Formats: sequence, structure tokens, C-alpha cells
Amino acid sequence: MKKALGIDIGGTKILYGIVNEKGEILSELKKTPTPKTADEIYSTLKKIIEENYNDIDAVGLSSAGAVNLENTRVLSSTPNLPDGYNQIDFSTLSDKKIYVENDANCACAAEYQNGAGKGFRTVLMITIGTGIGGGMISEGKLFRGSTGNALEVGSLKIFADKRQKCTCGRYDCWESYASGTGLKNCAKTGAQTYPEFKTSIYKDKLPQDITTYDITDGVEKNDDFCVKVFNQWIDYMFVGLVSLTDIFNPDCIVISGGMCSFIDVEDLEKRINEESVVSNTKVKTALTGNNAGMIGAGVLALSASSR
Amino acid sequence: MKKALGIDIGGTKILYGIVNEKGEILSELKKTPTPKTADEIYSTLKKIIEENYNDIDAVGLSSAGAVNLENTRVLSSTPNLPDGYNQIDFSTLSDKKIYVENDANCACAAEYQNGAGKGFRTVLMITIGTGIGGGMISEGKLFRGSTGNALEVGSLKIFADKRQKCTCGRYDCWESYASGTGLKNCAKTGAQTYPEFKTSIYKDKLPQDITTYDITDGVEKNDDFCVKVFNQWIDYMFVGLVSLTDIFNPDCIVISGGMCSFIDVEDLEKRINEESVVSNTKVKTALTGNNAGMIGAGVLALSASSR
Repeated sequence: MKKALGIDIGGTKILYGIVNEKGEILSELKKTPTPKTADEIYSTLKKIIEENYNDIDAVGLSSAGAVNLENTRVLSSTPNLPDGYNQIDFSTLSDKKIYVENDANCACAAEYQNGAGKGFRTVLMITIGTGIGGGMISEGKLFRGSTGNALEVGSLKIFADKRQKCTCGRYDCWESYASGTGLKNCAKTGAQTYPEFKTSIYKDKLPQDITTYDITDGVEKNDDFCVKVFNQWIDYMFVGLVSLTDIFNPDCIVISGGMCSFIDVEDLEKRINEESVVSNTKVKTALTGNNAGMIGAGVLALSASSR
Repeated sequence: MKKALGIDIGGTKILYGIVNEKGEILSELKKTPTPKTADEIYSTLKKIIEENYNDIDAVGLSSAGAVNLENTRVLSSTPNLPDGYNQIDFSTLSDKKIYVENDANCACAAEYQNGAGKGFRTVLMITIGTGIGGGMISEGKLFRGSTGNALEVGSLKIFADKRQKCTCGRYDCWESYASGTGLKNCAKTGAQTYPEFKTSIYKDKLPQDITTYDITDGVEKNDDFCVKVFNQWIDYMFVGLVSLTDIFNPDCIVISGGMCSFIDVEDLEKRINEESVVSNTKVKTALTGNNAGMIGAGVLALSASSR
């Protein structure tokens, strides 16, 4: 079976290891701090690839940002990565097949091949962290759209009356309601409108200072205000997921990201199947964790090099 | 080049003709009234296929309703078609390859192959009539989801606070705001909230009796109330289209259906590219008209029989 070097280029560290077509990890995983300049990132990647050159058939790179249709460049600058990063032509790193893909798409590939989405036909992956990202694979093929930028699901509008401004500058993006940032927004709005705030453990905090941790902690302590804010947040998440279920008709939705440990996926699955037009969608929590980008990049590189 | 008999099974008539892989019509188009029972529909289709048997390689059928993954049955009963229709196994109609597909998907295939979407990579088709339907083709392949029911875009939720009940029983579906029915709903709501209603040519009408025709006619007459209602309707349509642009990253959106003649697609294109995350989407009006279902069914049948 062919093998790829999977490399996850994160804002703080680069994680890498060797995987096969099934998404199984075949080597010890290694990491190194992400250098501060684009040139140093390039030379670090080159060195990592050279060290593994004789053991691999292809190289997959997972990165934040929008990736071009040819899977050779990261087009958009991302705040966590240095100036000039979007000028790198990754295909020049080696004479092995090089394949760059957006981190959310890589995570989706990892879950499809060897995670919670294994064995399903159409897997929709939703990553809920500070923002919301997504990926979708159907019949083994990642859906990329016309320029490689599909599944910008965080920008799905869940209101049509310009009620809340998103950090992206647009209005009513799903991620401004249903991400980690969204939970903080729910708390801020709720503090002004829910009578429960007056008796909450956070009643002396400024609404804008209530954190996502405050709310999840308050839910554990059964604080009425926190429970109400949290349920509103779940309702916002639910509305977006139902729309996406009707759009993609997935047999499996995989939820990942920093917020996913707070979500009751069984309850969400039940509600989605009650509300969506077609009902037989499983909702699962991601299994590949921090290795998702690395595994998915490797799997996608091997799939691309076999075409 | 191979040829297919394309058959569009409508609520009132069955339209059919011979098309090639390019979606070109090769024969005179014929039509016959849609019989009132499922048995008669079956025997009528059988007769039509037999008449054309020697000239064709495959048969494509376009129908309202949800189609199974094997493209042999229409699973959901549709109000315009008789009891027992969902019991028909269309694959038994002939020993030629038979391929049934949902009418919105067929229309999308027709536009992609030989209509407004010709030459584009990822074509999203949105049909705006009494309701809203959709289809999406990328790299020549129709996206069907896990059970063949993807692109239920009419159910996209554009509010998250249960503000308007849809005819489907759910709340805040896009089609309850942005279809023909949606325009009527906009008029009804607007009559209660817009001060312009007091001086409108429809001021003596009951809000629920204002029709879509009243509004489009009133817009031509420059009635302030009608203009305001119409612009609200366009805004609702826009919100859904921006979300779908961010989700599918299409290079072309084709608008079809009874309401599309009222839509300024150039203005919509400009606004979508200003608002969506990635900006280079063309918005066009469908070209294949009443032949869309017939052409698309034929094209899809030939594509399926060549696999």
C-alpha cells in the first residue's frame, strides 16, 4: 500500500507523520515549532520531506486558509501565518507529488477514511471552535466547488434582517451565533434580555466580559441564566445543521473542534432527523483529534497521486 | 453519438423527445395529457418508449418528488400525481437503460450541458416558482447526497426564531420568503407594517388577498408599497443565494422557474459577489425553459448508461 507524509502546518507547530491510504498512522508523530517567516517555513518543510523521502510516495500538507484549485498554494493570508506565506508554491518542495489542502477539508478526509465518518457515503464535517468551518466528502471525493473554496459554512446566514455583525464584517453569519465566539455573543445578548441574568452567578459581570468558559461552567453548576444561554446557542447550531442536512443529504455529520465536547450529539441527531426533509442522518463526534489535518492531508495526497 | 428519449412527467402533461449527449434536441417534441391513475401513466410511458425503441440507447424520466438512489422509483408522493405513483418501478418499462431523476436535478443537467451553465465547472441551479427547488452539478456530476435527496434548498432556514410558518409545517424555510408564495407572504406582512400600504393601489384589499401578480404589476406602476414589498422579497432571495454561494462556491448560478422573469440577475450577481466570501460567480437566467426536464433526463440517462 502506498504511503504519504502528512504535514499539518499550524499557527504554533508543524505536526507530521507517515500514513497509508486507509488513514492509518505508520510512523511515530513528530512536531516542530512553526517558524516565524515564510522562507523558514519553506526550508523547514523541505527538510522534513527530505528526511522522509525514501519512505513515501506523496506529501500532503494541511493548512489554514483558502487553497487554489491545483492544490499547490494557500491563497488567502491567515492571521496565524506570516507575510509571504501565500506566495509559497508548495509544489516546488520536492519531486514527489505534493498536495496542499485546507485544514477543514483535510479533517473531513481523515474522518471519512478512518474516523467517525468511516463507512458512510456522504460525510459532512463541521468544525466548531472560535469560528465554524466545514468539509464534505461524497463517494470518496472531496467537494471543492469552482475555485476550491466550497463549504464556507460559517458564513451561512441564519437571520435575514442584519441583526448581529460578525467579526468578518458581514451580518448574521452562522459562526457569529453558533461558534465559541457565538456562545459569548449569546451570553452578551442574553444578559440584556433574559430576566435570569439578575439572579445568575455572573450578575455582577459586564455582559461583554462573560466568557464561553463561564457559560459552560455555569451550565454544570445549573445556573438558570447559563442554561438558557447555552440552550439558545444549541438552537442556533441546530438551525444551521438542519439547513445543511437538507442541502447535502449526508448520512453522517461529524462534529469536531474545541466546542464539540459540550454538545450532546445524540440529542442533536434526534432533533435533526425530526426537522430535516429526509431523515436518516447520524451525528457523531470526530475521532481523529489533533491528528486530523495530518492524516487527511496524507490520505488526500495519495488519492490525488493515484488519479 | 448516443441518443436518449427524454420524458418529462408533469402534473398535467407528459412531454417527450429525443436528445443526444450534448443536450441537443434531435426530434419533434410531442406531448400527451398525464393520465389520472398510476397504471395508466405506466402504460402510457411504455407505449411512448416502444414507439421510439429503435431510435434510442436509453430513456430518461423527469418527475416531481424524491427519487431513490438507484434512479428507478419516485419515493415521495407528490400532490400533482396519483396514488400508487410511488409504487411504480420505472426500470421495468423497457430493456433499455431507464433513469429517473427529480425534475430540479434534470433541469440543472439541461442547463449545465446545453443552457446557461454550459462551460462552467460548478453550476448551482435554483428554481423559483410556487416553491423553491435546486440542483447542483460539479465537474459533470450531479450531486445527490446519501439517498438522492440533496439540494432541498427551499428548506434552508433564513431566520432562527420561528417567525413564519411554511406550508411544509416547518418554520422560516427560504421558500416561504423568497418563492412566489414568499412574495405573497411579503405582501401580507408588509401590509401590516409598511406605512406605504395606506396610500397603495391595494389599500382596500385584505392583506392575505394580495397576489404575486398584484405586486409585480404594482411595481411596474411604481406603487411605493409594491416596490417596498418586492425589494424585501429580493433581499430574502439574496440572503439565501449568498449562503448557497458560500457553501457551494459555484462559478455559475442559474435561476429558473415562473418567478425568474421578475429578477434582475445582473444586479443580483453584483450583490452576491460583493457579499460572498469568494467572488467570481456568474448569475444567469435559465435558457432551456419548458424543455429543461426532458433534455436533462435524456442527458443524465446517457451519462448513467455510459458508466
